Amino acid sequence: MTRIAIVGVAGRMGRTLVNAIELEAEATLAGGVVAQGSSLAGADVGELAGVGKRGVVAVDSLESIVDDFDVLIDFTTPQVTLANLAFCAEHGKRIVIGTTGMSDDQLATLDSYRDRVPMVFAPNMSVGVNLTLKLLETAARALGDEGYDIEVIESHHRHKVDAPSGTAIKMGEVIAASLGRSLKEHGVFERVGQCGPRTDKEIGFATVRAGDIVGEHTVMFATEGERIEITHKASSRMTFAKGAVRAARWVADKESGHYDMQDVLGLA
Amino acid sequence: MTRIAIVGVAGRMGRTLVNAIELEAEATLAGGVVAQGSSLAGADVGELAGVGKRGVVAVDSLESIVDDFDVLIDFTTPQVTLANLAFCAEHGKRIVIGTTGMSDDQLATLDSYRDRVPMVFAPNMSVGVNLTLKLLETAARALGDEGYDIEVIESHHRHKVDAPSGTAIKMGEVIAASLGRSLKEHGVFERVGQCGPRTDKEIGFATVRAGDIVGEHTVMFATEGERIEITHKASSRMTFAKGAVRAARWVADKESGHYDMQDVLGLA
Amino acid sequence: MTRIAIVGVAGRMGRTLVNAIELEAEATLAGGVVAQGSSLAGADVGELAGVGKRGVVAVDSLESIVDDFDVLIDFTTPQVTLANLAFCAEHGKRIVIGTTGMSDDQLATLDSYRDRVPMVFAPNMSVGVNLTLKLLETAARALGDEGYDIEVIESHHRHKVDAPSGTAIKMGEVIAASLGRSLKEHGVFERVGQCGPRTDKEIGFATVRAGDIVGEHTVMFATEGERIEITHKASSRMTFAKGAVRAARWVADKESGHYDMQDVLGLA
Amino acid sequence: MTRIAIVGVAGRMGRTLVNAIELEAEATLAGGVVAQGSSLAGADVGELAGVGKRGVVAVDSLESIVDDFDVLIDFTTPQVTLANLAFCAEHGKRIVIGTTGMSDDQLATLDSYRDRVPMVFAPNMSVGVNLTLKLLETAARALGDEGYDIEVIESHHRHKVDAPSGTAIKMGEVIAASLGRSLKEHGVFERVGQCGPRTDKEIGFATVRAGDIVGEHTVMFATEGERIEITHKASSRMTFAKGAVRAARWVADKESGHYDMQDVLGLA
Repeated sequence: MTRIAIVGVAGRMGRTLVNAIELEAEATLAGGVVAQGSSLAGADVGELAGVGKRGVVAVDSLESIVDDFDVLIDFTTPQVTLANLAFCAEHGKRIVIGTTGMSDDQLATLDSYRDRVPMVFAPNMSVGVNLTLKLLETAARALGDEGYDIEVIESHHRHKVDAPSGTAIKMGEVIAASLGRSLKEHGVFERVGQCGPRTDKEIGFATVRAGDIVGEHTVMFATEGERIEITHKASSRMTFAKGAVRAARWVADKESGHYDMQDVLGLA
Repeated sequence: MTRIAIVGVAGRMGRTLVNAIELEAEATLAGGVVAQGSSLAGADVGELAGVGKRGVVAVDSLESIVDDFDVLIDFTTPQVTLANLAFCAEHGKRIVIGTTGMSDDQLATLDSYRDRVPMVFAPNMSVGVNLTLKLLETAARALGDEGYDIEVIESHHRHKVDAPSGTAIKMGEVIAASLGRSLKEHGVFERVGQCGPRTDKEIGFATVRAGDIVGEHTVMFATEGERIEITHKASSRMTFAKGAVRAARWVADKESGHYDMQDVLGLA
Repeated sequence: MTRIAIVGVAGRMGRTLVNAIELEAEATLAGGVVAQGSSLAGADVGELAGVGKRGVVAVDSLESIVDDFDVLIDFTTPQVTLANLAFCAEHGKRIVIGTTGMSDDQLATLDSYRDRVPMVFAPNMSVGVNLTLKLLETAARALGDEGYDIEVIESHHRHKVDAPSGTAIKMGEVIAASLGRSLKEHGVFERVGQCGPRTDKEIGFATVRAGDIVGEHTVMFATEGERIEITHKASSRMTFAKGAVRAARWVADKESGHYDMQDVLGLA
Repeated sequence: MTRIAIVGVAGRMGRTLVNAIELEAEATLAGGVVAQGSSLAGADVGELAGVGKRGVVAVDSLESIVDDFDVLIDFTTPQVTLANLAFCAEHGKRIVIGTTGMSDDQLATLDSYRDRVPMVFAPNMSVGVNLTLKLLETAARALGDEGYDIEVIESHHRHKVDAPSGTAIKMGEVIAASLGRSLKEHGVFERVGQCGPRTDKEIGFATVRAGDIVGEHTVMFATEGERIEITHKASSRMTFAKGAVRAARWVADKESGHYDMQDVLGLA
């Protein structure tokens, strides 16, 4: 049974992580940390997350629950994450990090703990996205040089400010690498007006922005007579929370090291 | 029972029209015309189309079958179509025209027959596409001003040279008109890089080009909590052929006039 | 500006309703009621719902906020709803009711208030589902007797205990009624083994149960050459909450009466 | 350059094979055989298939073109196929067989040629379907025991008489085998009425029958927060023709043996 503590437990991702632990028979909620001075310190973490009283009280410092947990899950900010990493190194804890937006310096600091902390670090913890990358590699190798056109279609909510999504680009990169192509050369990101017929090697991207779509990615391999489509649909941030909990269980018996989700899923 | 003759019966669309008539209990294949001097004159039209011998012999002039048919279906070229229209006017025949690429002058000539010939003219004869336009109008009016984001996604085969498709643009125009918007102002045809969040009134377009896709159009109305999607998928040119045969049956008892598919479908 | 109070504001639907009001410029959160004796009485309703402090304190009786609101939204239990309806009649309030599971007696009691209270009552408040029913009617009338096969495919989460969903059946009924068919006679709810070719008039149903799918319904009209698909996807209970808020705004200036969502959407 | 001859070249599959060879730079149309006594003997095979004159004349016996081709493609009947196989053994030819409906005796006879003829035999030659089976195996292994519900949805044209499709069942078997489950025990082929919640290990099947759908299969892996969907869509019998041509190219330099599509695609 992996005992998990959550930093930032009062935030949206924190509450979702509590729900994800609830779904997991081999993990247990062992602690929840809120910001220093928050009025939510002292509240029951289960009630905070809407799953009912669980007898775990929210605290505002990791020190006060140091003996209660084995693995920390951290989706916060770079600065907070690095402080928590130092805490884990000092106290022999493991950590799963989903924090994004780290600078190169912060990434280097993070990596410098690889010999002292068993840690999983991944910007996208979704099990499904990570598996999808593997499937795309297999499909691209089998089809890419046999006259199959490859297109990536992604849909996200109306608030997303960039296009295509980072995950769509990652998918394109995996496909291009599998085929010895370069996304820089063969990626086609717009088609408007008299753009002419499709070329053989291009990898096309199409973008949809609407409503509350959490994130949908489809890669199509199409030729005369058939199509294969590989689709990932995130329906809630639960997909990231569950990936994090799976990573926490996985890292619970690993040696110090800097792991990613391909390691966790055994796809590396 | 509507007796139908087909011009250009040896071409792909002509053969498909023969197959469409086969599916229709209340229409019968009454004649097929091939190009003058074609070696296929004299062949059985059914065999040509792969449906088996039908006892209708391909001819190379309309005159020779003038007593055999009631309605002519014509998917040829502007020049040929206008000659056939003159023939129909002279001999009291009706005509369904799917020919594209007419100049403004040719369109004016065509329209000048409206008092002498019952004719259906439509650049896209698909029953489904024409119904879809009607559904989009209904949906846009109910949802468009209530915070639903509208996106048009279209997919076509690798040979298509322009984007978005004419049908996608037509869909956008119908939606814009229903909402008092202008596609010129609110149509968004590309999103690449840091394009910022979606605005409320934009109508987005996304384009996929791959394989042998005959033509797929989806219009999405999405908001927090739900999506409505209205999709049309053409799987073969049979969809255009069936629309033409339906138009032929419909026009068989109409007075002279210049009709379109909205008239045929009773959606006007 | 419609002032809305929510009964059961601490529950999942109650919290979602608070979020839906936040999205609506012409409605304002005017009160929230929790169960009598709940420890959440006194909490800020906005904080409860995760949208931040809104200065509206949760109370445990409607009386204490009687002057604060115009329309009540009630997704609770039949008994609680009927008590609240009596309160609305007495105090000149309006009500939107999404409560399900009423007995025939309870429904009769509810209806008996139609002359004293402006009320909207609907078991499915989704704007999209109600619009979809209208689109299906239009499509069925245009296509149903022209050789289009009609199939209803629905997907729901793994916990759903019945199949097909009530909404899928409702869709089938609307289609059947539009075509003069009977779902009892023409509905096909299973196809296994050597079931033979499809018949012309059958309306087929297919059911998927998996994961956390909130609810997806697709109706397909397919024939040789083309398909039209009309799809509704609920992504969260927000779709029901938003429909309820739209109903609240709509009913705010209506006379006493028993209305449904078709009235609210102007589709009746 | 692989020189390919086609038996049954006047049939639908035969004509499609001619079109598939046209698309393939490294194969050439070297002969076409029609039924003995057919009036189509002597016709140009390219014209028969609608691709224009190719200078290859249809014959009614294999003997007359014995020096012209390297590989035979045969989608005919068991009896004809076995005769052609004997011909190939005698004359040192290779063969690709897509014929279905063989009895156990006929299969044994076919297999008895494995030491004398390089042959590819597969009931479904689609490259995409065979790749999809491989992807399903990978996905099932990564997800199947981690709380992902697995559903297979298949859609076919209105004339199909059995359900689920053979390919859907094959997909289910591959998934079950990957997870140590039994389709017999865990396959769920109907859900009607009060069927209760989904169980963890079941593999559900849903069937759609409509219009002209050539064949669509989707396998969904869904859990709280996300879905992965792997879809194959056949748009024409071209998918089988192209697989056959790919098999012909592949087998052109192989030793005698009884191969299948997994061998051809390098997925075995």
